[in-house]
Amino acid sequence: MKRSYFPSRPGDPAPLAASIERRVRFEELDPLGIVWHGRYASYFEDAREALGRAYGLTYLDFHRHGLTAPIKRFEVDYARPLTYPQTVRIDCRLHYAEAARLNYEFRISTAAGEPATTGATVHLLLDAARELVVVQPPFLADFCRRWREGRLP
Amino acid sequence: MKRSYFPSRPGDPAPLAASIERRVRFEELDPLGIVWHGRYASYFEDAREALGRAYGLTYLDFHRHGLTAPIKRFEVDYARPLTYPQTVRIDCRLHYAEAARLNYEFRISTAAGEPATTGATVHLLLDAARELVVVQPPFLADFCRRWREGRLP
Amino acid sequence: MKRSYFPSRPGDPAPLAASIERRVRFEELDPLGIVWHGRYASYFEDAREALGRAYGLTYLDFHRHGLTAPIKRFEVDYARPLTYPQTVRIDCRLHYAEAARLNYEFRISTAAGEPATTGATVHLLLDAARELVVVQPPFLADFCRRWREGRLP
Amino acid sequence: MKRSYFPSRPGDPAPLAASIERRVRFEELDPLGIVWHGRYASYFEDAREALGRAYGLTYLDFHRHGLTAPIKRFEVDYARPLTYPQTVRIDCRLHYAEAARLNYEFRISTAAGEPATTGATVHLLLDAARELVVVQPPFLADFCRRWREGRLP
Repeated sequence: MKRSYFPSRPGDPAPLAASIERRVRFEELDPLGIVWHGRYASYFEDAREALGRAYGLTYLDFHRHGLTAPIKRFEVDYARPLTYPQTVRIDCRLHYAEAARLNYEFRISTAAGEPATTGATVHLLLDAARELVVVQPPFLADFCRRWREGRLP
Repeated sequence: MKRSYFPSRPGDPAPLAASIERRVRFEELDPLGIVWHGRYASYFEDAREALGRAYGLTYLDFHRHGLTAPIKRFEVDYARPLTYPQTVRIDCRLHYAEAARLNYEFRISTAAGEPATTGATVHLLLDAARELVVVQPPFLADFCRRWREGRLP
Repeated sequence: MKRSYFPSRPGDPAPLAASIERRVRFEELDPLGIVWHGRYASYFEDAREALGRAYGLTYLDFHRHGLTAPIKRFEVDYARPLTYPQTVRIDCRLHYAEAARLNYEFRISTAAGEPATTGATVHLLLDAARELVVVQPPFLADFCRRWREGRLP
Repeated sequence: MKRSYFPSRPGDPAPLAASIERRVRFEELDPLGIVWHGRYASYFEDAREALGRAYGLTYLDFHRHGLTAPIKRFEVDYARPLTYPQTVRIDCRLHYAEAARLNYEFRISTAAGEPATTGATVHLLLDAARELVVVQPPFLADFCRRWREGRLP
């Protein structure tokens, strides 16, 4: 299993983390009886949204600040296929960064606790005119300050 | 196979029709090796959009007139499963109506020409405030007049 | 809202019922900001699977008896659109029948308790050779006997 | 735009290539009016399947040799969002390799010819017992020999 998609720098605060469980659906399986590779974006997004709800970083939070956070890069490494029926655990970690981007890392584990999948999404920020935001906007800069200071919920 | 989802009245002009071909995708199959029942909405929409492009009734055409045409009712009758690989034919017919609604009927045939699926969608109209439109708006009334008069493209 | 998709006969035992909650996903929305109509098959299947797990009628239970239960008919009536973010409730009821088919009915309610969607699926039974099963197979006949006798879990 | 996901070695034969066109669907859009990032696996697979049909490397070709080619790694880099309505072009290239794996590269261009998306999939081979195949099986070794000798169709 891949160790980390984002190198951490000394002094960075620890990643923010959230975990969810998700039941594998019959409809997600392909004729080989495993979850089709293209469905993992949904698995990752469920965990990313859970993290967003915990810390105030959902689609709607960005929207309230006139921002969107579209995905610039998406990658998945498949170690073990997901089968049905089972409930998997999805861990999401947001890595600290001072740039105007968001680096999320994902890990899916089977019901038996075996690592199954890892992956990452990198998000840019666009303003209300859909122009690229090149320095952290106040909303995110403030968020990172509280993160460094250990004042996030 | 079901004959018709919408009774026609004497004097109504003939339905508008369009046909497309679509290749069954591996990702659409379930573990039984047949297209999962929930994917047919996409098959129908492809044909409905083709009809919309031919006659000026796409999502964007409605949008230009401040309207949306959300689906009120959706039904599918499955006679033969769709397997892979094959290319199917999807026929769509829009039935004439003087109400502020759109009645589409669908028929999927296998590569061998056998009827596989029929279905229907019924659409209402909402205005820009997302209120129900109860009489045909000018855009649709004009469309229906040209339809009756045989002046559609 | 449609009252019932399946007429009940006097003397039939009450339908079996199950309910789940499901969070509307960002990815399920269309550009109008509402859940695209084609995604409801997944909502219904989640509830039908929950009922299946409660009573022993999942895909795998049928498979163990050499049967599959493909969908013959699928219908949805949309009363209110589903928006994001919210968690909806999905109720599923299996209606008693002595034929070799399964009649499921669905009802989706918004977080505020308002009825949003109703629908139904009708399933046939196929045997291991994928031939239509015309009388209730022992597995289902026994299930229905216990249902009539009030001996289901 | 990323130049190449797979380094080529001197002497390797040129990649195999195929291109398709695909119409962006309304249902693929998210509330921001762009194709949701998780739908690109389907875009890539359409082009990979077209290449497979041209050269005899589809799911069914592998199946006939007792093999499956599950995806080990999937990555996408998004440069420009895809909007609706438009028809995009998807280019797929299979890179030569002497290992028991398949390295595909993808490029999506807008109707206006602008590069929109790049990506890659890496596939392993499993045998009929779903064990990892570590050296090229005869089917693939023979394929690569004909590739080197310029004898592919």
